[in-house]
Amino acid sequence: MPYGYNNKILRVNLSTREVAVEEPGEAFFRTYFGGWGLIAYYLLKELEPGVDPLGADNLLIFASGVVTGAPVGGSGRHAVGAKSPLTGGFGEADVGGFWGTELKRAGWDAIVVCGRAQEPVYLWIKDGQVEIRAAAHLWGKQTADVEAMLREELGDERVRVAQCGPAGEKLVRFASVMHDVNRAAGRTGLGAVMGSKNLKAVAVRGSGRLEMADRETVRELARWLQGEGMKGWLPNLRENGTDGGLVHLSARGGLPTRNFQQGSFEGAEKITGETMTQTILVGRDNCFACPVFCKRRVQTAGRYEVHPVYGGPEYETAAALGSCCGIDDLEAIAYGNQLCNAYGLDTISTGVVIAWAMECFERGLLTKEDTGGLELRFGDAKAMVGLVEQIARRQDHVPPALGRGFGDLLAEGCLRAAQTIGRGTERYAMQVKGQEIPMHEPRIKFGLDLGYATSPTGADHVHNIHDTSYAKEGEAIRNMRGLGVLHPVPIEDLGPEKVRLVKYHIDWQVFQNCVALCIFMPYSREQIRDLVRGVTGWNSTLFELMKAGERAMAMARAFNYRQGLSARDDVPPWRFSTPFESGPAEGVKVPEEDIQRALALYYGMNGWDEETGAPTAGKLHELGLSWVADLVYGA
Amino acid sequence: MPYGYNNKILRVNLSTREVAVEEPGEAFFRTYFGGWGLIAYYLLKELEPGVDPLGADNLLIFASGVVTGAPVGGSGRHAVGAKSPLTGGFGEADVGGFWGTELKRAGWDAIVVCGRAQEPVYLWIKDGQVEIRAAAHLWGKQTADVEAMLREELGDERVRVAQCGPAGEKLVRFASVMHDVNRAAGRTGLGAVMGSKNLKAVAVRGSGRLEMADRETVRELARWLQGEGMKGWLPNLRENGTDGGLVHLSARGGLPTRNFQQGSFEGAEKITGETMTQTILVGRDNCFACPVFCKRRVQTAGRYEVHPVYGGPEYETAAALGSCCGIDDLEAIAYGNQLCNAYGLDTISTGVVIAWAMECFERGLLTKEDTGGLELRFGDAKAMVGLVEQIARRQDHVPPALGRGFGDLLAEGCLRAAQTIGRGTERYAMQVKGQEIPMHEPRIKFGLDLGYATSPTGADHVHNIHDTSYAKEGEAIRNMRGLGVLHPVPIEDLGPEKVRLVKYHIDWQVFQNCVALCIFMPYSREQIRDLVRGVTGWNSTLFELMKAGERAMAMARAFNYRQGLSARDDVPPWRFSTPFESGPAEGVKVPEEDIQRALALYYGMNGWDEETGAPTAGKLHELGLSWVADLVYGA
Repeated sequence: MPYGYNNKILRVNLSTREVAVEEPGEAFFRTYFGGWGLIAYYLLKELEPGVDPLGADNLLIFASGVVTGAPVGGSGRHAVGAKSPLTGGFGEADVGGFWGTELKRAGWDAIVVCGRAQEPVYLWIKDGQVEIRAAAHLWGKQTADVEAMLREELGDERVRVAQCGPAGEKLVRFASVMHDVNRAAGRTGLGAVMGSKNLKAVAVRGSGRLEMADRETVRELARWLQGEGMKGWLPNLRENGTDGGLVHLSARGGLPTRNFQQGSFEGAEKITGETMTQTILVGRDNCFACPVFCKRRVQTAGRYEVHPVYGGPEYETAAALGSCCGIDDLEAIAYGNQLCNAYGLDTISTGVVIAWAMECFERGLLTKEDTGGLELRFGDAKAMVGLVEQIARRQDHVPPALGRGFGDLLAEGCLRAAQTIGRGTERYAMQVKGQEIPMHEPRIKFGLDLGYATSPTGADHVHNIHDTSYAKEGEAIRNMRGLGVLHPVPIEDLGPEKVRLVKYHIDWQVFQNCVALCIFMPYSREQIRDLVRGVTGWNSTLFELMKAGERAMAMARAFNYRQGLSARDDVPPWRFSTPFESGPAEGVKVPEEDIQRALALYYGMNGWDEETGAPTAGKLHELGLSWVADLVYGA
Repeated sequence: MPYGYNNKILRVNLSTREVAVEEPGEAFFRTYFGGWGLIAYYLLKELEPGVDPLGADNLLIFASGVVTGAPVGGSGRHAVGAKSPLTGGFGEADVGGFWGTELKRAGWDAIVVCGRAQEPVYLWIKDGQVEIRAAAHLWGKQTADVEAMLREELGDERVRVAQCGPAGEKLVRFASVMHDVNRAAGRTGLGAVMGSKNLKAVAVRGSGRLEMADRETVRELARWLQGEGMKGWLPNLRENGTDGGLVHLSARGGLPTRNFQQGSFEGAEKITGETMTQTILVGRDNCFACPVFCKRRVQTAGRYEVHPVYGGPEYETAAALGSCCGIDDLEAIAYGNQLCNAYGLDTISTGVVIAWAMECFERGLLTKEDTGGLELRFGDAKAMVGLVEQIARRQDHVPPALGRGFGDLLAEGCLRAAQTIGRGTERYAMQVKGQEIPMHEPRIKFGLDLGYATSPTGADHVHNIHDTSYAKEGEAIRNMRGLGVLHPVPIEDLGPEKVRLVKYHIDWQVFQNCVALCIFMPYSREQIRDLVRGVTGWNSTLFELMKAGERAMAMARAFNYRQGLSARDDVPPWRFSTPFESGPAEGVKVPEEDIQRALALYYGMNGWDEETGAPTAGKLHELGLSWVADLVYGA
């Protein structure tokens, strides 16, 4: 009897309606650990180079990790993956809630979907029983309606639903896969992959119990979190959500504002989590087993009608639809958030695409002829809300000055939209590899710029360095010392020691996205090692786990190379190498020569080829990935 | 107050007779950990390329590690290092006993000696007091005499003495540095470096107490060793010494016999440790704090007079002077051992040099005209004993058919001797990088061949893979699982997974040679991590410690590159790729194509350049060695 996993991977071929089970065994789970690693394994093994992300040959993978469902805060997560229609490379997004735990309780570790259904369908998984069911009646429906209809139809209020939403159906390239209505596997456009397969939803109900090798170790960690662990910053995370502290970020000059032109926002006070708590908050929500309750439930009824079922804005959302668009109207942001969750849109990409359009409009590169009459000015909440809906619907009723509807164009993401329009608009597309940049400003933490440039999923924050406390003594540097990085490194440093720190940090974050553990948890690396040991019974050391993170990263890089990406796609966004013209961080920039040198160092430290960007054969072998070396370099 | 180290490095310039103290600080000790790492640091920092190993500009370094002197078995070790006169590269040898602990108790972590005394001198270190004293009266004297004279002269029976012996004075290229008379820092010719500096001895007496961060953790490990830890193979190690089981090795076909021509020896029974126990053994000895007592004290009085002060043959010695020379006369071997310890010769190199001469003689490549009348036949104990003395004295009274005395020639090591003689004798010189191969046969454990070829010190067993239990389930593979190598790998496998295992294993052994811990101890990696934590108070993880081993290895490789070695010097000995013609392992060979492929893989996994053999800049930076990258590749 395995611990930490079921040794059951569900294979679903929507073209043939065949269902099969794989049992890859313990070594598979101990090598890839689930989540990102499992996704990278299947994508590398099964996707030919050049496969169409929106074609039948792409895979869509839902993957738990070995700690998913463990009765301890942070474990209520899983990952979704595919070849990304946004970047053309490794697509992966992490998500919390209850769906992943339910999948595991149903006896499955992952679902690997291939093919394409002829008509809309949904999957119904009740423990070992798997059905492909017609979903014509769900098609076009918003997420909360779909969830309610499925629970009704399946006669079980505790069914957990993953779904693509109308935006995914419309193949919006940054459509999300929604879970529990308000938890988004937001990034890299996986909702579009789901839509392209005519797979409207995956409904799951499990009655199993997760066995663990050493329940007491896991319980002890859970007790630690509720006691000692809750003494740090978690109380504020509970009180004000991830958006708590947005105003302080602005005060430091690190709040993406008006498409990253500024780092502080005069309206920050109005959209910060503290304000949300005092105004529109009506409840708090958690993920499985988590005592933190960082999720928001908000309600408004006035200019905008927001229902708590759609949750409330995360920090990323408040900044992307707020400061990044120059908007200080919290109700409008909450409404935009609701639209994104109802339609299944990634709030980050949505906000940055709109911010890009606003900047282009203000610079005269876009006109009302292009936008169908919309005045696109920073700060215009109504325009933002209108555009969210136009994107979700790929709306094309506007006069096609550009040859297609403006919403339809924005639904391609800012890079493709800019390339279609031309006129120099591409310069203002804040993206890496086609994916819009999240709400973290490298000019207040330089290492982040390196992470943006090199992330295999395009600009991403979930596997990036964002702890600025490495600049000073404290728990973070103590933890880094345990890895042999002995000294604090200033945030504006991009020398070898900083790059080493960034590499180790990112490898570790990637590992957390394999086991599927929330990166907000205050666990030390050794507590996480103990958790993995307690759940699985493996005698894993930190060396093994760090290597697992490095392995998963290497696989994603190898996948990207196989799909045509190269070192040329690892581009640090130019804007971060220009100084802020005002604000608390006035004059600060990431020097171009520093980031270029850091890039070369990072490549060298990772063992990545400077042309192809793929790991060298030697590095792949060292990570136990000889089969990937054979794939990339020939046997 | 530091734990685990004194933060005091003694600098002695014998040319100027200046003495100085360096206090490099905690980060230095946590980066290099002492021993091998500390030696590599100073050699890289201070030696120019091309420095003469026997000139005044070479350094001679005595280095404790952070666990040296901890009150637990295995900690009574230190390392000695220099540029090797045998290999021309990184010279390092590890040694047990009591001297290292005494040095640390005297308040020092290491001694770095440069320059050359005009007349013979010795160092007298009594706690903080350091004297350079005349040693003319000690010059030419054998080790036991020197130790006795120094104790007498210094008026303290508990003085610990390191010394070079007459062989070192004569610059025999494989002279050892002897400690406590019978503990040799045997390999890489460090005794010759000591002799070249006119430094006869280093006498130490310390009265300090070693402070530890967490004495209880260390005590617990000591208790574990004396209880659970003594239940495995240690009782046999105590009973019969390291030579116990030689007969079983022969039965498996893995006992180097007649210069590695065979793998089993018909006289094994007569020279195995069990026989020693039953015949000439008169006592057992230990290193500091060690409950095992694997060291022998033997006595004979008949054909050969052997005094227990010189200890007794280790396995390496019994095989090198025994089976490797076809000799089954244990008393002769014990006498040969005594000569080596009295003169300060490395028993391994001595035996293999003699075996080489015997093979050449039997093949007709050497004649009595060359040897001064000696019939050199395998099995001739008297010839062996005679040659040991001739080598130690660089005896040149024999007719100089070769233009120099035969003993003088052999004192150059088998590679140089063969190159001088020519006539195809080089083919039978069993060496890598000029250093003679120790008594471990790769044809019964293929991974060893890779370690021999690539070791920066030349053929070596102390930082190599020699645990064959990776072929089957057991504690060893369980420990490797903790590093992510999940499956047993057959001993005859040289594929990527085996090479990965070899790399991790060697990196770990090198780490143990940094902290200075005996590799015979049955501690798991995590127990060793706990020991390092307990002694130092650092929150080190296995990731940090594995990286420290990789770092120390990378430094040694970088040093070799700086001193003119390259990938061309990493040559697997040809004989191991020819099949045994008889015996239990008849027909077995390490296939040439397998070992060559393994070499390429090992280079790739280590991030070593395939031409220069040096670590790439990226790898050096990743190991926190940017200063080495600058040294090798320019800033």
